[in-house]
Amino acid sequence: MLSISTKLKNARVAHFSTVGPSGHPHIVPVCFVYRRRVFYTAVDQKPKRAPAQKLARLRNIQQWPQVALLIDHYEDDWRKLWYILVRGKAKLLPKSAAKEHKTAIRALQAKYPQYRAGMLTDDAPIIRITVERITSWHM
Amino acid sequence: MLSISTKLKNARVAHFSTVGPSGHPHIVPVCFVYRRRVFYTAVDQKPKRAPAQKLARLRNIQQWPQVALLIDHYEDDWRKLWYILVRGKAKLLPKSAAKEHKTAIRALQAKYPQYRAGMLTDDAPIIRITVERITSWHM
Repeated sequence: MLSISTKLKNARVAHFSTVGPSGHPHIVPVCFVYRRRVFYTAVDQKPKRAPAQKLARLRNIQQWPQVALLIDHYEDDWRKLWYILVRGKAKLLPKSAAKEHKTAIRALQAKYPQYRAGMLTDDAPIIRITVERITSWHM
Repeated sequence: MLSISTKLKNARVAHFSTVGPSGHPHIVPVCFVYRRRVFYTAVDQKPKRAPAQKLARLRNIQQWPQVALLIDHYEDDWRKLWYILVRGKAKLLPKSAAKEHKTAIRALQAKYPQYRAGMLTDDAPIIRITVERITSWHM
């Protein structure tokens, strides 16, 4: 059984849930990096349903920073099921956090080859999720 | 490219997001069946972090029925990425809905062999999610 931090580092995708202005939950799959109880995820160059400034995840966290991230593993052999639920606060990195922004971009590019091949621009908006609570479950 | 309804029928796991009393989002992976714009998911016999009546997903929907379900596909070949985001209302099936409850149990057992092998009891609580809106994305 892998440790929680190894699972979080290895996972390629997480499910990111925010709450909209009228209290409706929203979820999208996101690429991410995890280091020292902080997650970073970018508004990358994959096609989006809306321009960056209108993306539900960004609008939502600006009004209500409380979010959840789920990292999980499914297979039909249920003895191998597990999930990790992260609760925390999300914030769009401000221009003043230029150094942290650059570090996050570099870490995302190190993890995902696609991000080194043009799918992530150096000025991409970065969301920082600060962990408040991690719960984990496995069969 | 498969149709949305084929993707929804074929998927083995969904990510179910609810909102807690203090407005915090919560997510768990769930097994489910989908038929005619309704999803059913059960409180099954997999080990749980809390007894059924205290499960966050059940407490949450009783106070705030607005939920989201994400069904998605990730692989490192990003040309094959897709997701389907379902927004709707969730309700614990009441005792009076005995026929619908039985149909849902049978459909879950037909889809998941584990549910035919003791992982789902005939009296398991069933959550019905009525679809209000489906949005889909693919690369």
